[in-house]
Amino acid sequence: MSASDTPIRAVVFDAYGTLFDVHSLVGVADELCPGRGDTLSQVWRQKQLQYSWLRAMSGRYKPFHEVTRDALRFAAAQLALPLAPSIEDRLMEQYAHLATFSDCLPALRELDAAGLGLAILSNGNRDMLEASVRSAGMTGLFDHLLSSESVGTFKTIERIYALAPAAFGCAAREILFVSSNGWDAIAAHWNGFTSFWVNRTGAPLEQLDTVPDHVGTTLSDVVAAARAARR
Amino acid sequence: MSASDTPIRAVVFDAYGTLFDVHSLVGVADELCPGRGDTLSQVWRQKQLQYSWLRAMSGRYKPFHEVTRDALRFAAAQLALPLAPSIEDRLMEQYAHLATFSDCLPALRELDAAGLGLAILSNGNRDMLEASVRSAGMTGLFDHLLSSESVGTFKTIERIYALAPAAFGCAAREILFVSSNGWDAIAAHWNGFTSFWVNRTGAPLEQLDTVPDHVGTTLSDVVAAARAARR
Repeated sequence: MSASDTPIRAVVFDAYGTLFDVHSLVGVADELCPGRGDTLSQVWRQKQLQYSWLRAMSGRYKPFHEVTRDALRFAAAQLALPLAPSIEDRLMEQYAHLATFSDCLPALRELDAAGLGLAILSNGNRDMLEASVRSAGMTGLFDHLLSSESVGTFKTIERIYALAPAAFGCAAREILFVSSNGWDAIAAHWNGFTSFWVNRTGAPLEQLDTVPDHVGTTLSDVVAAARAARR
Repeated sequence: MSASDTPIRAVVFDAYGTLFDVHSLVGVADELCPGRGDTLSQVWRQKQLQYSWLRAMSGRYKPFHEVTRDALRFAAAQLALPLAPSIEDRLMEQYAHLATFSDCLPALRELDAAGLGLAILSNGNRDMLEASVRSAGMTGLFDHLLSSESVGTFKTIERIYALAPAAFGCAAREILFVSSNGWDAIAAHWNGFTSFWVNRTGAPLEQLDTVPDHVGTTLSDVVAAARAARR
């Protein structure tokens, strides 16, 4: 059965970068570190991912909130920015209230109305995910918030992706896994999901010998693909 | 027994960034892609590491030479640089002949003369390591070239680090593990080695709840530390 023939029962979303805009804190960052907010945000995000990967590989899990703080401290040091505790706390607080992309809420409501199961599967710990969902006005839309916390590891370790088929009681192939992070969409594909890469920024395809089942630019494209594959 | 009391029997080096300067190909890259060589080199290296981590986490090993080529293709695409096959081949060829840092050969000779075992432990596949060692005039200096190829995974998975104690028949703590990559020095520490971070660029310490046993700026500092810990 080809990917396009598989009936889709649920749609599972990555959180950071996909539903929540990790660079939406550039404004606050720029106010706190004038002229450097964008660079700080980029380095912070890259380092956050890198630390999650290193910890996952070496079995050194700790809550993503703490990994995020570690990454912020490294990013500030690399840019030689003083990071007073009050500034650090304000940036971390901002991380719990990231803006959502404008296409998210309408798409989630359409998918929900179509009777599809909905979940988030994220590196974020449960508190982070709950705060972000609440802050974005998405309360009640998700059947499951699947967090790294329950398995003690991060993407792309297999057992974090395994949370979604277990939660919905179906095969990974019956789940449309949606991520704006190209590497995450590809790892989802490796783990058997029907994969959708929301390429918001026109990035090149990651060179990992794998192509996601679907590629689009917004969550509206996800709605169209999910509807076409709904049975 | 504290780190400084542990007798050191062997010194194991990371290859890329530590013995071989991955950015020494900027000249060739800049000639092929005028004005963009430095950026290409930076993105290439970051992507090479990222792909090695993703493949290690997801059990998708393939030889580092191929990972390196994949990373080059992504980097060129991200910078919107045309990458004709002849240019790609020339850059890949250059990767087999990276310059060595000026402190490496004298330090290796001193350590060898002091009767210490010497090895490279690297993500590189065997062919890459042999070519680099030959090209750098280091033939005959190493007791072992320990390659990701023999375990089918990359750093920071435990079983690649385990190659060194197995090769020397001693405890990890009796091996001084030397890397210029902060994350590698820390992962070596996690894996029980006496760790030495050669911080060539004045980078901030990685925020991973761990401090290497030793920090220096050149391989001369490694010689001093190894001599002090020799029994």
